[in-house]
Amino acid sequence: MLNAATVDFEASLRAALPAAAFRDDTAPYMSEPRGRWAGQGMVVAPGSTQEVAQVVKACADAGVGIVPYSGGTGLVGGQLMPDGPLPVVLSLERMNKIRAIHQMENVLVCDAGVILADVQSAAEDVDRLFPLSLASEGSARIGGLLATNAGGVNVLRYGNARALCLGLEVVRPDGTIWHGLTRLRKDNTGYDLRNLMIGAEGTLGVITAAALKLMPRPARTGAAMMAVPSPAAALALLAMAGERIGEGISAFELMHRQGMDFLAEVGPEVKPPFAEAPEWTVLIELGLPAGLAPEDALEDLFAAAFEDELVTDGVIAQNVAQRQAFWHIRESIPEANRLIGSVSSHDISVPLGAIPEFIATGQQRLAEVGDFRINCFGHLGDGNLHYNVFPAQGRSRADYEAERPRVKEVVHDLVHEMQGSVSAEHGIGRLKVGDLERYGDPVKLAMLRAIKQALDPQGIMNPGAVLRQG
Amino acid sequence: MLNAATVDFEASLRAALPAAAFRDDTAPYMSEPRGRWAGQGMVVAPGSTQEVAQVVKACADAGVGIVPYSGGTGLVGGQLMPDGPLPVVLSLERMNKIRAIHQMENVLVCDAGVILADVQSAAEDVDRLFPLSLASEGSARIGGLLATNAGGVNVLRYGNARALCLGLEVVRPDGTIWHGLTRLRKDNTGYDLRNLMIGAEGTLGVITAAALKLMPRPARTGAAMMAVPSPAAALALLAMAGERIGEGISAFELMHRQGMDFLAEVGPEVKPPFAEAPEWTVLIELGLPAGLAPEDALEDLFAAAFEDELVTDGVIAQNVAQRQAFWHIRESIPEANRLIGSVSSHDISVPLGAIPEFIATGQQRLAEVGDFRINCFGHLGDGNLHYNVFPAQGRSRADYEAERPRVKEVVHDLVHEMQGSVSAEHGIGRLKVGDLERYGDPVKLAMLRAIKQALDPQGIMNPGAVLRQG
Repeated sequence: MLNAATVDFEASLRAALPAAAFRDDTAPYMSEPRGRWAGQGMVVAPGSTQEVAQVVKACADAGVGIVPYSGGTGLVGGQLMPDGPLPVVLSLERMNKIRAIHQMENVLVCDAGVILADVQSAAEDVDRLFPLSLASEGSARIGGLLATNAGGVNVLRYGNARALCLGLEVVRPDGTIWHGLTRLRKDNTGYDLRNLMIGAEGTLGVITAAALKLMPRPARTGAAMMAVPSPAAALALLAMAGERIGEGISAFELMHRQGMDFLAEVGPEVKPPFAEAPEWTVLIELGLPAGLAPEDALEDLFAAAFEDELVTDGVIAQNVAQRQAFWHIRESIPEANRLIGSVSSHDISVPLGAIPEFIATGQQRLAEVGDFRINCFGHLGDGNLHYNVFPAQGRSRADYEAERPRVKEVVHDLVHEMQGSVSAEHGIGRLKVGDLERYGDPVKLAMLRAIKQALDPQGIMNPGAVLRQG
Repeated sequence: MLNAATVDFEASLRAALPAAAFRDDTAPYMSEPRGRWAGQGMVVAPGSTQEVAQVVKACADAGVGIVPYSGGTGLVGGQLMPDGPLPVVLSLERMNKIRAIHQMENVLVCDAGVILADVQSAAEDVDRLFPLSLASEGSARIGGLLATNAGGVNVLRYGNARALCLGLEVVRPDGTIWHGLTRLRKDNTGYDLRNLMIGAEGTLGVITAAALKLMPRPARTGAAMMAVPSPAAALALLAMAGERIGEGISAFELMHRQGMDFLAEVGPEVKPPFAEAPEWTVLIELGLPAGLAPEDALEDLFAAAFEDELVTDGVIAQNVAQRQAFWHIRESIPEANRLIGSVSSHDISVPLGAIPEFIATGQQRLAEVGDFRINCFGHLGDGNLHYNVFPAQGRSRADYEAERPRVKEVVHDLVHEMQGSVSAEHGIGRLKVGDLERYGDPVKLAMLRAIKQALDPQGIMNPGAVLRQG
């Protein structure tokens, strides 16, 4: 059993750490983007790895829970603890320095509290690319992005956060520091602790710094929006693009017309690429080496796809502004979704080939539950869809309280039948603990619990996230 | 304490499994490539995952150790147990089927006993590339390659074995089966068990099947040998190639003249690219998309590098035969090394920028220990060198028994000083257990031991590999 962070406990922490480490206004740390839960706890923002270790050690000694807090952009409630004994919310916001850039090695080493956009800029300053990119990049911080193994729009080409990390510094649940901040590309000395910490959502330790991989910047970048008649055609277009352009495809996003309709209805304002929105649109981004023109490659792809009836219309960006306008549409969809207010949102993946069947069957089964608008969009190239279910026109989220659990169950059962994942990139947090129990292989669950018990025997790290508190 | 696989135990296994699962001639399983150790044990070769589970369960019930045996090509003694209670050697050789190829998804699913070259061929048959490539690819099997997180010559571009695996099927130490054989590109539901099993060298379970990532085949492939004046010049050439060619560089290998001299002395026979062997040679391989000619890119690179005095001579392969001849040289060096007989061999990595200093300092420090020939070659692009120390001309390995421990210590101490790894791609096996203890961060070692204890509390899986038997 955990203990609460009492007034006495807080006083002893205040005596041990600089005043700058404390946050009297805790409100900003107690909400999350979808407004489902309110958090609780005292908030500490250590200024160094040593201070993080001090806080963790104090919590371990007192049996107080710790909720690591990064950018606060997570969508599954991993960043707040709505009930249980009052925890320490440990914010990494003051650890926001880029420690070193090794340009020749294509490595950037930074504190866990650095904001993603700042890493992207620092990479650009040395003519490199840090390819992790997602809608919340202006506020999400590296520690949280790694703790949740964040995905985003460039996973198809560059992999998720896990694939972009060479080393970590981590404060363990007992307050000791694991110095795994290596810049090595290869190191086969023992089990893969780095990848165990990545994606553990702060339940095995606190990431305090990371060595990140930078990539060469593609010489030329281009993008196109293409209208496709069906998800199956989108998949065939992806395969055709792969045959013709290979690894030059940086992103391949699918969007249903519903998203465009939401944007028109509630904003943000965007400039639609087609006079009449097609049922399905794909956004393709290419990054090519010197000597190849993305516009030509996209033109050729479109011509071949049109011949095979895989596309019905298309617009190729002619300049940077147009390319950014395409991405602005894609990146505005989550905000439009938020403004409409979903009945139930799902971040799912299925094997790539199963995508069309998933979309068709999902629609059928939900029609049996009620009258919904489905906004299905996402990272087709990764088999990862954001499959979000909304109220019918003129009705609101509140009208669907009764149906919500059934909607989620229908979608997740289908994903499970198709050997997919009920959390492709957002993680488990607190929202999906029950889903993990319901759909997870019991052998896998036994391993997860054994590892948690082995590395955090007191259960103080992000209590109740990923695994139910024992 | 473990128990020996007694005659009674063997009899009970024989009663439970088909006769085809037993190997009366156990000799082939009891040696390893460098001839340092002889193994022991009864040998079982199950024909299915269920049979593997049966064998493991029987061993768990009897407290008998299990040594998973894949291609037997490992260089650190992970595949044999020279002492301790007689174990079961569990060979995956009969599980050698490719289960499915999902061409559109770029996924191949196979048993763990499939030989790497067969996976490469199967990928080629569907116009895809399985990029894992190393000298032993004709006999190494997928299970062992994953268990050791194998590297090889294409890591620079495609990553190591870990980066090429989407899912695993694993028999756990209690005989239960973890069905993690997913084809998903994204799945953030719980801790990263896949990467924990990859690189665990059979100490946490037996990999019985894997879902592997296939890649598009580059439209055009080319290679060049370039003579460079120094390791620093080789690094500068690598950076220049990165700036110009980006991700199109598939391999960047460094070879010291010593390797060429060994080839001339003991074979295998090769056709040297230069009339007089330069002190340092790099082998560069490119794989480019349609529309770009590797020969032109290599020509341009050579011209620019020559201008900057980074290269002194070069040969660009004009056809497939010449490219293969270049690789034949590189891939023959390990065999020449074996024929010469090393005093001590090291598979090390350091941060890329530290390579020149490592090579210079290593030479100096070894000169203080004795008179050696050093053959330093390997995957420069990954910061991974095979740094092998040989007897002086006219002397033999046996003359250096006294110096061997000191040689190893000098090299590994230097690696450690430079924040490198004493096992970049070969793993720990039994050879480097002491090195892991000596150089490993105590916090890391505590985590490794906690994980081993949590997932294999009886300690029956590959006893004594990676971690000393408790």
